[in-house]
Amino acid sequence: MKVRRRAGRGRYDQKTINAILDEGMVGHLGLVTDGQPYVIPVLYARVRREIYLHGSPLSRLLKGMVSGAPLCLTVTLLDGLVLARSAFHHSMNYRSVVVLGEARAVDDPDEKVAALEAIVEHVIPGRTQDARGPSRKELKATEVVAMAIREASAKIRKGPPIDAAEDYALSIWAGEVPLTLVPGTPAPDDRCDSAVPEYLQPYRRPAA
Amino acid sequence: MKVRRRAGRGRYDQKTINAILDEGMVGHLGLVTDGQPYVIPVLYARVRREIYLHGSPLSRLLKGMVSGAPLCLTVTLLDGLVLARSAFHHSMNYRSVVVLGEARAVDDPDEKVAALEAIVEHVIPGRTQDARGPSRKELKATEVVAMAIREASAKIRKGPPIDAAEDYALSIWAGEVPLTLVPGTPAPDDRCDSAVPEYLQPYRRPAA
Repeated sequence: MKVRRRAGRGRYDQKTINAILDEGMVGHLGLVTDGQPYVIPVLYARVRREIYLHGSPLSRLLKGMVSGAPLCLTVTLLDGLVLARSAFHHSMNYRSVVVLGEARAVDDPDEKVAALEAIVEHVIPGRTQDARGPSRKELKATEVVAMAIREASAKIRKGPPIDAAEDYALSIWAGEVPLTLVPGTPAPDDRCDSAVPEYLQPYRRPAA
Repeated sequence: MKVRRRAGRGRYDQKTINAILDEGMVGHLGLVTDGQPYVIPVLYARVRREIYLHGSPLSRLLKGMVSGAPLCLTVTLLDGLVLARSAFHHSMNYRSVVVLGEARAVDDPDEKVAALEAIVEHVIPGRTQDARGPSRKELKATEVVAMAIREASAKIRKGPPIDAAEDYALSIWAGEVPLTLVPGTPAPDDRCDSAVPEYLQPYRRPAA
């Protein structure tokens, strides 16, 4: 998919695309059932030129899914509101990636373990050293899908609003309101008496 | 679409669904072209039982779109990471809504103006009193699509991890890391000498 509108916002280099995919935590997966598109939030991890997807939210939809079904995964990072002098030029600052590819069921237990580890490490680097790994039964109960990146494109908007020349004379506040996804203090559950692990002191996106 | 997996996370009442749609800023729109799903980030506004979508990012995709094409709009609010003792029970706290409906092109100028105002007000309540409204030319250049909410379902996960009974004996930190989308200080552009408007002091989601 080529980015045709607002050509200035199109970015194609793989480094940019990977950085956005790696900073994101939740992606939105598009799939088609009987002509109806569905979009569901998913956890994922990029490993080289593939994306691993996981989980129960997919189960019902994956059940009918033949290997080779076309998928779309979109990851969007919201960076700010852009307030222009005219309603027309209002916008958002964001970085997003759209990936197209085909579904492949991951059944091999070793690949499944590696994929699940990659997903946990993607969201919380360091965590797999700590958490108990999956049992054979848990592994069986978990669906994992791989999606080879057939096509990917990024769009980025940053910076101040761009108003029509004559609108700069108007006395209207214009600028940006930055938005940041901020992690709070880790809150242990009621039965936890372990110390907060290093990789949460603090938790950061993207990981340092 | 009924939520079949993790039935406890399914929420159907309209008040819950509307609250999530109204707190979200960016939705992910799914549509199908030649069997390929596409998912694109969009600004939107809910007005009663319809969702208005807008904009240039849609243009290329909307061009081929017949009125009546099935759409899916998903809005996800990320509330936190859920770290369980087992990798298997790791999760996210989130609130999401999946809306299914059909596309309807909005061509009537009055409805178009109202829809665009609704989108701006949805993201920044109070802003349309301030910003210059669209000229006839701008209005013509803006595509607006309405989507009647045919079906909607919400999923919510909150609270601490739920581990397998025997895993609570493990000395592994477990709990939540809250995530919040935090607005920063409004930054005027270089040519702005107006005071920061009241509706940005501070900017809040959801609006009070």
